[in-house]
Amino acid sequence: MRVRKRKGVEDYLKAHEDIVLQEVPESWEVVFGNAQPIEIEVGCGKGDFILGMARKHPDVNFIGIDLQETVISWALDKVLAADVPNVRLLFVNGKDLGDYFPEHSVSRLYLNFSDPWPKKRHAKRRLTSSSFLHIYEELLVPFGEIAFKTDNQGLFEWSLAEMSEFGLILEQVWLNCHADPAFAKENVETEYERKFSAKGQAIYRVLAHFPKREGVRDEVSEMSI
Amino acid sequence: MRVRKRKGVEDYLKAHEDIVLQEVPESWEVVFGNAQPIEIEVGCGKGDFILGMARKHPDVNFIGIDLQETVISWALDKVLAADVPNVRLLFVNGKDLGDYFPEHSVSRLYLNFSDPWPKKRHAKRRLTSSSFLHIYEELLVPFGEIAFKTDNQGLFEWSLAEMSEFGLILEQVWLNCHADPAFAKENVETEYERKFSAKGQAIYRVLAHFPKREGVRDEVSEMSI
Repeated sequence: MRVRKRKGVEDYLKAHEDIVLQEVPESWEVVFGNAQPIEIEVGCGKGDFILGMARKHPDVNFIGIDLQETVISWALDKVLAADVPNVRLLFVNGKDLGDYFPEHSVSRLYLNFSDPWPKKRHAKRRLTSSSFLHIYEELLVPFGEIAFKTDNQGLFEWSLAEMSEFGLILEQVWLNCHADPAFAKENVETEYERKFSAKGQAIYRVLAHFPKREGVRDEVSEMSI
Repeated sequence: MRVRKRKGVEDYLKAHEDIVLQEVPESWEVVFGNAQPIEIEVGCGKGDFILGMARKHPDVNFIGIDLQETVISWALDKVLAADVPNVRLLFVNGKDLGDYFPEHSVSRLYLNFSDPWPKKRHAKRRLTSSSFLHIYEELLVPFGEIAFKTDNQGLFEWSLAEMSEFGLILEQVWLNCHADPAFAKENVETEYERKFSAKGQAIYRVLAHFPKREGVRDEVSEMSI
């Protein structure tokens, strides 16, 4: 969803470069001041999910990513108000994510209610398309997971097949994840999810990981299990 | 579902050994009198699906399989009444299927509304469990497909993950296959499916194939594409 540009957004973000990174960081360990595992949300929107996750899991560092600076600025509003140490924001196109993270350094990647891009000719823009899966594979540690939830049936059906064809292993599939008490307990809702599920409609979810690939060091994969 | 034994069922089946095979055939080519591709349904119930498929695809040979002789006898009633040349029945436990088919000789395998065996300790009995997937892999030609439909949400969720973990590639997933005009056109309904979908409830479906495995000849896999 394209949004109208917020007035003075550049200056606002610039004033909080410690939260919204403007340049490729030397290392995320330096940014966070520790070496906790890193989990990212591609398409973080207004930031409720990434902030909620950071609150819930202080032993993990979270980075919310969006390609619109106005959207990131709304997330920044919330992060500033919350004063949570283990969350940062990035505004960058998903295609350029490889520049911001060392290879195989992200433990988990979240996709929440991504734009379905329903037209077939726009399939490559879907954040679960193979063009993005290639990028995620570079980012994620061996066996690192992608957690994807959506209310869009067509996008979900398509994404399961796209992930599987790419070689991802689907660990668990939910056709109504809010009805699963184990998941509901750990779930952090997005703004959109809250409104949508209040109407009683099903939220789909899949948790998937890449298989071990040739050329990836064994020690690394053993560490991450 | 266990059913009460039909009176005289052994004699009835024996009298129609040309349709319901009682012994391992020398070859399916001899049985059918031609070398058409073979597709099987594991758990054929009363036979509406396998008979409907045989009618719709005269260039394919279909075999309906069930482990209860009374159930097979009901399917036999219909096959006899229909007089369709390209359908046969087998009553055999799915675990013994390997005895009845040469390795990599089945083009497609159908599972329709299989028993969900909802208790966790019965998971191995589900026809989509890894213990059965091992058998199907032996039966199916390289890239041969499994087509599974069910109305059971829990079984479907579990089966997608089980298939994926086993290494199957999910080609297409439907969360409401009757709503897809392309599929609806080719679909043959089971007895159960007709009743169930008449209530407007969703039928889930997945089409999946095994990847190419080492040790399988390349020529074979090229032929089957």
